[in-house]
Amino acid sequence: MNFVTHLECANCGKRYEANLVHNLCTACQRPLWVKYDLEALKTKFPKKALLGRPSTMWRYLEMLPIQDPDKIVSLTETTTPILQTKRLAASFGLDNLFVKDESRLPTGSFKSRGMTMAISKANEFGIKKVAVPTAGNAGGAMAAYAARAGMEAYVFMPEDTPAINKKECYLAGAKTFLVNGLITDCGRIVGEGKQIKNWFDVSTLKEPYRIEGKKTMGLELAEQFDWELPDVILYPTGGGTGLIGMWKAFAELEAMGWLKTSKKPKMISCQSEGCAPISTAFEKGERFAPKFENASTIASGIRVPAAVGDFMILDAVRQSGGVALATPEADIPKWMQLAASMEGIALCPETAVCLGALEVLLKRGTIKNTDRILIFNTGASQKYPEAVNEQLSRIDIKKPIDWAQI
Amino acid sequence: MNFVTHLECANCGKRYEANLVHNLCTACQRPLWVKYDLEALKTKFPKKALLGRPSTMWRYLEMLPIQDPDKIVSLTETTTPILQTKRLAASFGLDNLFVKDESRLPTGSFKSRGMTMAISKANEFGIKKVAVPTAGNAGGAMAAYAARAGMEAYVFMPEDTPAINKKECYLAGAKTFLVNGLITDCGRIVGEGKQIKNWFDVSTLKEPYRIEGKKTMGLELAEQFDWELPDVILYPTGGGTGLIGMWKAFAELEAMGWLKTSKKPKMISCQSEGCAPISTAFEKGERFAPKFENASTIASGIRVPAAVGDFMILDAVRQSGGVALATPEADIPKWMQLAASMEGIALCPETAVCLGALEVLLKRGTIKNTDRILIFNTGASQKYPEAVNEQLSRIDIKKPIDWAQI
Ligand SMILES: Cc1ncc(COP(=O)(O)O)c(C=O)c1O
Ligand SMILES: Cc1ncc(COP(=O)(O)O)c(C=O)c1O
Repeated sequence: MNFVTHLECANCGKRYEANLVHNLCTACQRPLWVKYDLEALKTKFPKKALLGRPSTMWRYLEMLPIQDPDKIVSLTETTTPILQTKRLAASFGLDNLFVKDESRLPTGSFKSRGMTMAISKANEFGIKKVAVPTAGNAGGAMAAYAARAGMEAYVFMPEDTPAINKKECYLAGAKTFLVNGLITDCGRIVGEGKQIKNWFDVSTLKEPYRIEGKKTMGLELAEQFDWELPDVILYPTGGGTGLIGMWKAFAELEAMGWLKTSKKPKMISCQSEGCAPISTAFEKGERFAPKFENASTIASGIRVPAAVGDFMILDAVRQSGGVALATPEADIPKWMQLAASMEGIALCPETAVCLGALEVLLKRGTIKNTDRILIFNTGASQKYPEAVNEQLSRIDIKKPIDWAQI
Repeated sequence: MNFVTHLECANCGKRYEANLVHNLCTACQRPLWVKYDLEALKTKFPKKALLGRPSTMWRYLEMLPIQDPDKIVSLTETTTPILQTKRLAASFGLDNLFVKDESRLPTGSFKSRGMTMAISKANEFGIKKVAVPTAGNAGGAMAAYAARAGMEAYVFMPEDTPAINKKECYLAGAKTFLVNGLITDCGRIVGEGKQIKNWFDVSTLKEPYRIEGKKTMGLELAEQFDWELPDVILYPTGGGTGLIGMWKAFAELEAMGWLKTSKKPKMISCQSEGCAPISTAFEKGERFAPKFENASTIASGIRVPAAVGDFMILDAVRQSGGVALATPEADIPKWMQLAASMEGIALCPETAVCLGALEVLLKRGTIKNTDRILIFNTGASQKYPEAVNEQLSRIDIKKPIDWAQI
């Protein structure tokens, strides 16, 4: 059973038929929303249907755009845990600081949620070749799901993408290209090649289903918090699908009557000062974000100087009473170390900027220290050796050990 | 409720009181088993108790050595999925080839199962300082759980351990030392420092509880296969806790009457020809394995030239009707690429040797192509950039794109 009614441009409202292949709105070149019959869902998909279903993102199947469950391309996307922190919370003077650890998903990042959905839909449509521009993790995830589906994959990434993302694409058999530019340049190449190479463009938000996969982060956390959403969500923002997807999830859950109260979290869109288009537009009160010049950050996943869904991110942040803000690039290793050494939680550098934002917003009073605060760890720190300069001691086994030095 | 009756030397049978701090047998310097009252478990822990429990390794609590659940130090060790393969199975001419993907656990390897247990028990005992020699992943996992518990951690690793393991220990605040030797040299340092530094030795099998954590792999897979065990399990073997732990799990499940048949899997202990002490001893019909000289393999987790539990591994393999064998070091990248490109499953180099073993054993007839075969992916390939030499193409955005080349 599928409850999708149609697709709809998030900007101009133009309607599109479900179950046809779409990319951006043909009228205004902006992203499409997948729309559901929420009234029908409300009656036909009761909360108790979840009982006994496996702990994977597919437990919310009725709220997802799948037509033919046999065509799902999955590596088993298990529910990611929400970890309560103690020492880390205390270091910010907080009572309730939680981390949702998305590093537990296939390929070690939350990108697998979007890619399992996009590739599953592509599989339904009989698509055999897929292409994506990537900051790193999306390419790794697409390569893995395309391999699982037996599709040909083309990945375009900046030449200074973290080494591990290059290697995971290579291992998965994707045709992988290093580009002497940014993700926006890679996006241009994928767009140009569409006709020539006959591949399907899986770029963030240029394809309508990745966001539906990301939506499951919102569904999952709502269930994990027993249908009372946290007060604040901090999210590292690149293309923005994660934040937009969660906001869509909350709206759908509310329409279906699944939430205990109508109170929604303040959505905090976090960036690094090294690449801060969304926070810059937010501060200026703008809805569309100009390209951020000379983007540079070690948090490669949020090195996205221009996002086609900029207005969707900014709308969600503003509707939620949240903010978009950027914090110092140089603090990233400090925050990674803090979370790992206090809680054993290995934050990716993207998520590290959320701790910077948390510090600022507590001082400003935007976040209160009694708030229930949820931070998304979107990937494994282990994928980012470049972000860490370790200082370790050495022991020479040919000499007696100097125990005082240990 | 705790069902541990006592601890017992796996070699000489000497008994030890539960709930006291133990390392090796004081009589013969060999590992201790944790023993349970299986009769009591049989009546007091019915299978149906599992219904509705969260999908984590802690769902088997009654079969684990925890005294005080409040002292558990956890990062939420979710049940790892068993992935059925199609193309990969077919490439070996198989019907039923499964991969249990342990890379989904905290720190990206199965080592977290053992470490959450060891650190939880250390926490019960009031221990504040822990130390471990490591091939890499065990150090990363111990550092994370020690951080989560607020304990001081000391990690000793060969200087040529993969970079990511060094970095994860550093981030988690462990005092980390690079040693110009092998894991056995690191083990000697930890042993020497025990008295001087007053730390607790968490070395593989020199501490009785890591194996109880690893045992949960066997419990989980039994439940996932609906209590009918697979015909063959292929496991990359270093210190051997994984294989020994699973074999213990099957025996306990059988004694409790949880298994549908008494048929157990053939346990295949897989090593690289670069470090093959167990397979060498197996071939010679020996029970104790001499140190393997000049151990060298890119599969760092199985670079263990001498294992204190050698006889426990070899006993399990022989009792099961399995074998221990080593396959060519040079094939590791090929197997990693095969699994990733056919299924999107990112095998660690340790697990790659299992595919080598599978190929040999199918030829020999030890494994039949109708068998239900389970391979353990013990860690994320993403932690091993050193093992992969990618060859990628480049695109220069200053020049027109040569589409024929793409
Ligand atoms: C680890 C990580 N975090 C965050 C992001 C940003 O994602 P989004 O597109 O949802 O803004 C990315 C994107 O590549 C990423 O890889
Ligand atoms: C990825 C990986 N696989 C396998 C092993 C071998 O583990 P065991 O001690 O269970 O033999 C290790 C040990 O470090 C490892 O890190």
